[in-house]
Amino acid sequence: MKPSHIEHIGLAVRNLEESIRYWEQVFGLKCYRIEEVADQQVRTAFFKIGDTKIELLESMDADGPIARFIEKKGEGVHHIAFAVGNVEEALQSVQDKNIVPIDTKPRPGAEGMQIAFLHPKSTHGVLTELCSGSTNEK
Amino acid sequence: MKPSHIEHIGLAVRNLEESIRYWEQVFGLKCYRIEEVADQQVRTAFFKIGDTKIELLESMDADGPIARFIEKKGEGVHHIAFAVGNVEEALQSVQDKNIVPIDTKPRPGAEGMQIAFLHPKSTHGVLTELCSGSTNEK
Repeated sequence: MKPSHIEHIGLAVRNLEESIRYWEQVFGLKCYRIEEVADQQVRTAFFKIGDTKIELLESMDADGPIARFIEKKGEGVHHIAFAVGNVEEALQSVQDKNIVPIDTKPRPGAEGMQIAFLHPKSTHGVLTELCSGSTNEK
Repeated sequence: MKPSHIEHIGLAVRNLEESIRYWEQVFGLKCYRIEEVADQQVRTAFFKIGDTKIELLESMDADGPIARFIEKKGEGVHHIAFAVGNVEEALQSVQDKNIVPIDTKPRPGAEGMQIAFLHPKSTHGVLTELCSGSTNEK
C-alpha cells in the first residue's frame, strides 16, 4: 500500500459557517462544497489547496463523534485521509502489518468516495482515513 | 494571503526511529531526511507524499514543547504548515485580520525555511505554521 497523496485533512469545528469564513477570509481559500454525511452525523465543507483539501466537520448531533471529539479535545485536527487506489486492498495490506481498523470494510464517505478509518492506537495517535474515488486525482 | 499548498503536516512522536519504520513499512513512504532543529529542541524526519510532506517530531528535551504536547495529548497531529510566498507579509496579513501570532517575526525552521507559528486559540484549534523557501514547490 502506497498512497498517492493526502486526499484531505479533517478539522472538527463548532460552527461550520464561522469556520468557512475563517478559511475564506484569512487564508483566501474558497469553499466549493457543503455536504451532509448522515452516516457520520456531520455537515462538511471543502476547500482545495494544492493537491489536497481541507474538510471542515460540524456535528449534527450533540452525541455524535465530532461533538464528543470537540467536548474532549476542543476544535482542531480530527483526521488525515490518504488517497489509495483501492480501499479494500489497502485495508488488507495494513491489517497484514497488525494495524487495527475501525472499519473492516469500505463504506461510503463524503464526495462519493469509499472510505475506511484506522484506529489511532495503532497509527501513533493519528486518526487515519483511507479513501478511493478521490475527486482531486492528479 | 493565499497559501499555494500544504507544505507539511507535523506529527508529534515518542520515538523517531519507531515512527519512521511505521510510515515506511505500513505506508510505503521513504524517509529522505533526518534533521535536528536545536531551536525547537526536536529531531525531525521527512517523507514526501504528493505535493506535501509528513514531518515527524521527536523531542530532544524532556521539558521541550513536543514532550509537553505528548504528555498532555499523546502522540498525533501537532501542526499544519502552509507554504506562502513571504512569511513576513503573510504574518502581517493575518494580524490585520485579528489572528494572534506566536512568532511576531519569521525565524529559521527545518530544511532552511523561514517559519512563523499562529496561536491555535485564534485559528479554530489548529496550530498553524506559515513557511516560505519550501523545497517542494511545484
